[in-house]
Amino acid sequence: MTYASLDWRAAVHHDGSALYVSNPLPNYGERVQITLRLPIESPVTGVALRSAPDGEQYFSLMQEAYRDATCRYFVAELLITMPVNGYRFRLLTDEGIWHYNQHGIQRSEPLDHFDFKLLANFAAPSWLRDAVFYQIFPDRFYNGDPSNDVPPGAWSVGSFTVQQRIWGEPVMTWKESGNLDFFGGDLVGIAQKLDYLTALGVSALYLNPIFAARSNHRYDVTDFHNIDPYLGGNVALANLRAALDAVNMRMILDVTLNHCGWFNRWFTEAQADANAPTAEYFTFYNHPEHYEMWLGVPSLPKLNYRSMRLREVMYRAADSVLRRWLQPPYRVDGWRLDVANMQGRQGAQQLGHEIGREIRSAVKGDGHDRYLMGENFFDGTPHLQGDELDAVMNYQGFTMPLWRWLGAYDHGAGHYPLTSSVPISAETLAAQWATFRAAVPFVIARQQYNQLDSHDTRRFLSIVQGDKALAKLGAVLMFTYLGVPSVYYGNEIGLAGENDPDNRRCMIWDAAGWDHDLLAHYKRLIALRRQASALCDGGLQHLYADSDLIAYQRQSAAQRLIVIGSRAARETVSVPIWQGGIADGAQFTDLLNGGTYSVQGGALTLSSLSAGAALILEEAR
Amino acid sequence: MTYASLDWRAAVHHDGSALYVSNPLPNYGERVQITLRLPIESPVTGVALRSAPDGEQYFSLMQEAYRDATCRYFVAELLITMPVNGYRFRLLTDEGIWHYNQHGIQRSEPLDHFDFKLLANFAAPSWLRDAVFYQIFPDRFYNGDPSNDVPPGAWSVGSFTVQQRIWGEPVMTWKESGNLDFFGGDLVGIAQKLDYLTALGVSALYLNPIFAARSNHRYDVTDFHNIDPYLGGNVALANLRAALDAVNMRMILDVTLNHCGWFNRWFTEAQADANAPTAEYFTFYNHPEHYEMWLGVPSLPKLNYRSMRLREVMYRAADSVLRRWLQPPYRVDGWRLDVANMQGRQGAQQLGHEIGREIRSAVKGDGHDRYLMGENFFDGTPHLQGDELDAVMNYQGFTMPLWRWLGAYDHGAGHYPLTSSVPISAETLAAQWATFRAAVPFVIARQQYNQLDSHDTRRFLSIVQGDKALAKLGAVLMFTYLGVPSVYYGNEIGLAGENDPDNRRCMIWDAAGWDHDLLAHYKRLIALRRQASALCDGGLQHLYADSDLIAYQRQSAAQRLIVIGSRAARETVSVPIWQGGIADGAQFTDLLNGGTYSVQGGALTLSSLSAGAALILEEAR
Repeated sequence: MTYASLDWRAAVHHDGSALYVSNPLPNYGERVQITLRLPIESPVTGVALRSAPDGEQYFSLMQEAYRDATCRYFVAELLITMPVNGYRFRLLTDEGIWHYNQHGIQRSEPLDHFDFKLLANFAAPSWLRDAVFYQIFPDRFYNGDPSNDVPPGAWSVGSFTVQQRIWGEPVMTWKESGNLDFFGGDLVGIAQKLDYLTALGVSALYLNPIFAARSNHRYDVTDFHNIDPYLGGNVALANLRAALDAVNMRMILDVTLNHCGWFNRWFTEAQADANAPTAEYFTFYNHPEHYEMWLGVPSLPKLNYRSMRLREVMYRAADSVLRRWLQPPYRVDGWRLDVANMQGRQGAQQLGHEIGREIRSAVKGDGHDRYLMGENFFDGTPHLQGDELDAVMNYQGFTMPLWRWLGAYDHGAGHYPLTSSVPISAETLAAQWATFRAAVPFVIARQQYNQLDSHDTRRFLSIVQGDKALAKLGAVLMFTYLGVPSVYYGNEIGLAGENDPDNRRCMIWDAAGWDHDLLAHYKRLIALRRQASALCDGGLQHLYADSDLIAYQRQSAAQRLIVIGSRAARETVSVPIWQGGIADGAQFTDLLNGGTYSVQGGALTLSSLSAGAALILEEAR
Repeated sequence: MTYASLDWRAAVHHDGSALYVSNPLPNYGERVQITLRLPIESPVTGVALRSAPDGEQYFSLMQEAYRDATCRYFVAELLITMPVNGYRFRLLTDEGIWHYNQHGIQRSEPLDHFDFKLLANFAAPSWLRDAVFYQIFPDRFYNGDPSNDVPPGAWSVGSFTVQQRIWGEPVMTWKESGNLDFFGGDLVGIAQKLDYLTALGVSALYLNPIFAARSNHRYDVTDFHNIDPYLGGNVALANLRAALDAVNMRMILDVTLNHCGWFNRWFTEAQADANAPTAEYFTFYNHPEHYEMWLGVPSLPKLNYRSMRLREVMYRAADSVLRRWLQPPYRVDGWRLDVANMQGRQGAQQLGHEIGREIRSAVKGDGHDRYLMGENFFDGTPHLQGDELDAVMNYQGFTMPLWRWLGAYDHGAGHYPLTSSVPISAETLAAQWATFRAAVPFVIARQQYNQLDSHDTRRFLSIVQGDKALAKLGAVLMFTYLGVPSVYYGNEIGLAGENDPDNRRCMIWDAAGWDHDLLAHYKRLIALRRQASALCDGGLQHLYADSDLIAYQRQSAAQRLIVIGSRAARETVSVPIWQGGIADGAQFTDLLNGGTYSVQGGALTLSSLSAGAALILEEAR
C-alpha cells in the first residue's frame, strides 16, 4: 500500500486524549506536549503546531519523536496561557499546505472555531471518567414508603384532582389526569433499590425533580428549599445520600432556573403586589395579568435574571437554591439544569452566557467535582466552551442522529412541521456526531451526557419499533462512544414507551416481566464501559461509515478498541481500519461475541452480519 | 434539464440582501419577510424556516409566493426579538431532510454557528454602501508644506537619528534608518491632492497614524491628543476635514489601543513612579524593568484594560482618545483599530470581547454612522457578530487566499516556518471566502474592508510578480466582491513594493511615471463599484470554481452581474451559471470588454481567454 492508493489524509490524527496531549487538564504556565500522528507513507514534508496566544498567530515546528509500524509521531510544546488555548496543525506537502483541525483536514485556512482546545485550570469532575448514569423519574421508580403517598383528592389544579394509581397501571395522558396521577414512587424507594442498581453496575443517579410541587413530574416547583414531603422530604434525601455514599454512588438533581410554577410563593406574592420583593424576579408587562412566560404557558412564569436579587437567591448566596443542596447532609454531586437553552434569555436581554458563567463559578466554588449539565435539545456548543456547562444532554451530538439512523425517527423537541421517515445514512450520523464534537474542547466532549432517550422523548425501544437487535446496537454505541453514558430507568429490562407520559411507565419489579437477555447485555456493557481503559481514558477516531455501517476507534495507551455496528444484514463486508494506525496482521477479539479477526489489506473482513450486529474488537497485545 | 442531470442543491439560494430579506437592517419587533429560492425542478416537497427565539427551536412553514422561468420563491416571516436572530432552512424531500444555512446544504443537522443572521437595531454606516477607500501612509503621499518637515537630526532613538529624505529616493530599511527616515508627506499634502482622489473616484480615506510620534509610521504614539506637528498639527486635520466635506469624502483614522510607545507620557510617568496615576495602565511584573509588552518588544508596552481609568481615557469619556476626534472640527468618520486581534487580551485575562463591546457603544453613541474597523490578520469573525467591530481588514476572508491563488504567495503576518510556493486552486479560494463569510451576518460581510495589500504587506503587483494582467484581475475581484473595496495609495498607478518598508515608497506625482492603462482600469472599476446596483445592494452567490477559474453572481432587484476571472489562458471553457437562477437564452454584456454572451445549456461558453482574463457580465433586461 502507498498513500497514493489510499488516502493518507484519513490517517492523520490527533485528539485531546492522553495519547496525544501530555496533560489534557493543564494549569496556567504548563507546557503541554502535543502529538500528531501521520501515516508513514504520506507526502508531508513538515508539520507545524499553530496556536494564537492573545490572538496573535504562533507556529512551532513539530519534530518527529518516534514511529511505529505504520505511523510517524510529531511533537511540539504548547504553553498554556489563556482560559481556552486553541491550536491546529499546518502540514506542508509538495502539493501545498493542508490544515488539520478538530473538524478535519482541508486546503483552505479554517476558522478558529474548530481548533483543538485545551482549557486552563478546568474544573472537570474526575468521577465522570468511568461514570454510568441511571436516570430516575421519582414517582415511577419504586414506592418504598406507602405512608407518604399523595392521597387521592389532596389538591386540584383547574379541573383536575389528584388521583392515586396502582403500580403498573397504564399511565394517564394529560387530558385524562392533568399530570395529577401519582404512583407513589419516592426517595426511600430508590434507597431500597440500591442493590438492584449496584448489580446493574451504574455509578451515578440523575433524579428528575424532587422539590415540592403539584404535578407528578414536579417541574412546577412551589418551593426550591424543600424536598417534596410525598417523596420523603429533606430527611429522605439526606438518607439517600448516606446510602449512596456506602455504595460509592453519585447523584445529581434536576432544577429549572428558567421559570417556576405559578403556585411558587415568589410568583404568588409578586402577582398579589407589584411592589413585593420578588416582583422583580419576573417580567410583568401589565401587572398582574400579563407577564413573560415559558413558551406562552401561563402556569410557568419566566424568571428574570436582570434581577440581582434573583441571582442571589438562585445561585450566588451560600443558601441559594443551587448551592444549599451541595452542602451536607445532601451533598449532591451536581445539577441537571432544565431548559438550560433558554435560561436568562429574553428578547433584547440575552443573559444566557452571563448567568451561565456566574452559575459555573457559584457551583464550582463549592467543589471542582460538581457536574453541571444542562438540557439542550438544540445546539448547546456555545455553552460548552469551558466557562459554563460541563455538558449537555447530548441530543444533537449523539442521540437524535442515532434515532434517525436506527429508527428513521425524525423528531426532536416539540412539533416539526416537516418530518421525514427516511432514515439517514451512517455517513450522515458520523458527520453530525463529528461536527458537534468538533465545536467543543475534548475534555468537554468526554463529559457530554449521552442518552438513548429520556423522560422527554419516546423510549429507544419504541423508536426502533421494538427491534431488539437495533436496541442492543444503540446501547453498544452509547456505551462505547465518547461521553458519559446513561440509562433511563427500565430501558435495561426492556421497558418501551411512546411520548410523554407513556415514557414514564412504572418500573417493573417482577423479574418475570424483564427481558433478561437485554439486561445481561446492559450489565456487560456497563461493566465494560467502567473498566476498559480505552473507554475511560481513550481518544476517538471515526474510521468508516457507509449507509448501513459505522466503525470507530477508541484508543488509550493501554488498549485499542474498534467498535463496528451495522443496522442491516450483510453477507460480507470489508471495513477499512488502517487509518487508525493499524498494521496488517494485527489480531482482534470481539469482546461481545468472542470471534477473532485479523487485519488484511488494511481492513477487517466480516461475514454473515445480521441486522443490528455489533462488535467491540480489542486488539491483542 | 432535470434536477437529476444537474444538482438541484447548487441552485438553492438565500443571502441577506434585499432580494431575499425584506429589510436587512430591521428593528426590534419588526416582521421580516424571508425568501428562499429553489430551482423549479427539485425534489423538495416542503420548506420550513427554522429559528430559535430565546434558544428554543421554532419552525415556520414557507409558502411559495411566486415563480419565474427557472425558480420558485418561498416566503415566511421572521420576528425580530433578539440582538442576533439566527435562522436556516429545512427542506423536505422523498430522500429525507436537507438543511441549508450560510455554509451550504447538508443532510446532517448543522451547528447554529453558520446560521443566517439578522441583527436588530444595528448601527450600520449607510455611507459604506457605495464607499471605496483609499489608504494613505501620510509621510509618503504628498509633501504639501515643506515648512513643517521633520528637520534632520531632530531626535534620536537608540543609535538612529532623524534623516530627511528627498521625495522618490529609495526607502531605507529599519537597519539603515530605524524608521527615522522622513520624506515630508503631510495632511496639507493630502488636502492638496483631493482633485486627484476625486478624479480617481474614491469616496473615503483611511489614514495611517497621524498622532504625535517618533517614527515615520507613527505607531509609537507619544500623545493621542495631538496630531503630529510635522503633519500640520490639529489645525491641518480640521482643515482637511473641511476640504473633505466639500467633496463629500469620508475619513477614518488609525489608532492602536493594544499598546503605546515607550516615549508616551503615560508610560514614562508609570515607569518613573510605581504609584503614578497611569501605572495601572500597564502590567508591571517587576517595576520598572519588567512589564507586559507587545510580542516582547520593550518599546511597545501593552495597555492593561483591567484599569477602568484607562478605559475612561481611551474610549469612555467624551474627551477620550476615541471620542474626541469624532467631534467637530475633526469629525472623523470612524477608526481603524491597529492590532485589534490582541487588544484587551492578556493571558488569563481575556477582555477582548468585553472592551470590544464597550468600544462599540462608545463610538456608536456619538453617531451610528461611524465605521469601526479592526486590523486582524487571522480569524476576526468572533468580533464580527454585531456587537463589536463593523469590519476587519479582511485578510483571511478575502486577501490572503487571493494572494495564494494569483501569486502563489503563502505569507501572512510574521514568520511562517512552513511556506508553500504552490498556488491554491480557485475551489480553495472560493471555499475560504465562503467559510469566512458564513461565520458573520450578511450586513457585516458587506461592510468588510477588502484590500489587495496594505502598509503591512507586500504590494499586490509584487505578489503577482509584476504580472499586470493578474494585478488587474485582482482588482476586478476586489471591486466586485461583497465588501468595501480599498486602494492602497499608488496601486492604481502601478506602484510595486516588497515587504515593509519597500511597500511604503513615495507616491509618484509625475504622470510620466504612471501606468495609465492600470489607472484607467482602476477608475472604471471604482466608478462601477459606486454606481452598480448589484455591487452596492446586491447579494452574492458563488457559481463555479475549478483550478484556474472562478465565477460568482452579484444580484439586486435592478441588476444581475456575473463576474468571471481566470488566472490561466484557456481556449474555450463552459462556465455553468444556471444555478444562479438564469434561464437559457439570457443575454449578457461584458462591462469590461464589451462582448455579448448568451446562455445555452445552463452555461456561458467563453473562448480565447488569456491569463488574467476578467469579465463583468451584465444581464440584458
